[in-house]
Amino acid sequence: MSKDKVFDVVFTSHGVCVGKMRNEVTNTAHQPFQVSRMLATDEGKFQGGEDTSPTPLEFFLTGLVGCLMTQIRVFGRRMKVEFDDLEVTCDARWVAHKGDIGPYEASPVGFDIGITMNSDAPEPDIHKLIEASRRACFVEATLAQANEITHSLRINAGEPQAV
Amino acid sequence: MSKDKVFDVVFTSHGVCVGKMRNEVTNTAHQPFQVSRMLATDEGKFQGGEDTSPTPLEFFLTGLVGCLMTQIRVFGRRMKVEFDDLEVTCDARWVAHKGDIGPYEASPVGFDIGITMNSDAPEPDIHKLIEASRRACFVEATLAQANEITHSLRINAGEPQAV
Repeated sequence: MSKDKVFDVVFTSHGVCVGKMRNEVTNTAHQPFQVSRMLATDEGKFQGGEDTSPTPLEFFLTGLVGCLMTQIRVFGRRMKVEFDDLEVTCDARWVAHKGDIGPYEASPVGFDIGITMNSDAPEPDIHKLIEASRRACFVEATLAQANEITHSLRINAGEPQAV
Repeated sequence: MSKDKVFDVVFTSHGVCVGKMRNEVTNTAHQPFQVSRMLATDEGKFQGGEDTSPTPLEFFLTGLVGCLMTQIRVFGRRMKVEFDDLEVTCDARWVAHKGDIGPYEASPVGFDIGITMNSDAPEPDIHKLIEASRRACFVEATLAQANEITHSLRINAGEPQAV
């Protein structure tokens, strides 16, 4: 697999607490385009929230489904595979199990993605389009591998420490 | 690590194409709570979109940051670690490199998360809260492992085929 870089994708996000469970997250895209705007998450009443906005997992799954759909649409044009009526579904499952140090821990179970479309293109061309789009979808590529995630913690405006 | 189940998390998402690059994704939570609502993604003009809504990666990162913040807030109460002014940042990077079968492929580089708060709680208690919250955050747990992702493709209302 060639590793020749085509472009970088660089985002920063910054979330602040508002209300009981509402979080206002400002996402800034630095590359390959520039934009900055806020999306808010909340929880329903029985989880202690006020239901002012969708929950974090709704945002997460919208990112996954939306990214794959966008990739199929963009690559369909670039790879000259015409189609109509694209729809993408995702069945997503996790389990919360007893935790060693906290109330529970999260285990992802799996993500089943269904793609439907109408097309007169040859089937091998459609399969190639789907395979190329999966590989180019930034969210699916992230879910497909174990990622480097670092954390730093800063208490009372002290020095940031790795945790 | 105990695997005793505490609860299941089950969501389905369904995205349809609207406009040039806009996708309308209806997310339905089945467990542990029930809700169904729509979030739309779009792209900016230079990517062929009409900028009617944030891009998929903004949704994805809002899910990550919002989920971790919610977990810290919920577990702070349950683990009796009081704090104020919680903020969470995330620097996220990917690279698009030349593809073997499509125009490019996506490679995640890493996710650097910064957590700041004010608190009079003992530092070891705060560290324990952060560690427990990371393990319980459904999005971070998903990014930390290589996930099972299946795909099925249905063309012209034919039989679904694995791809």
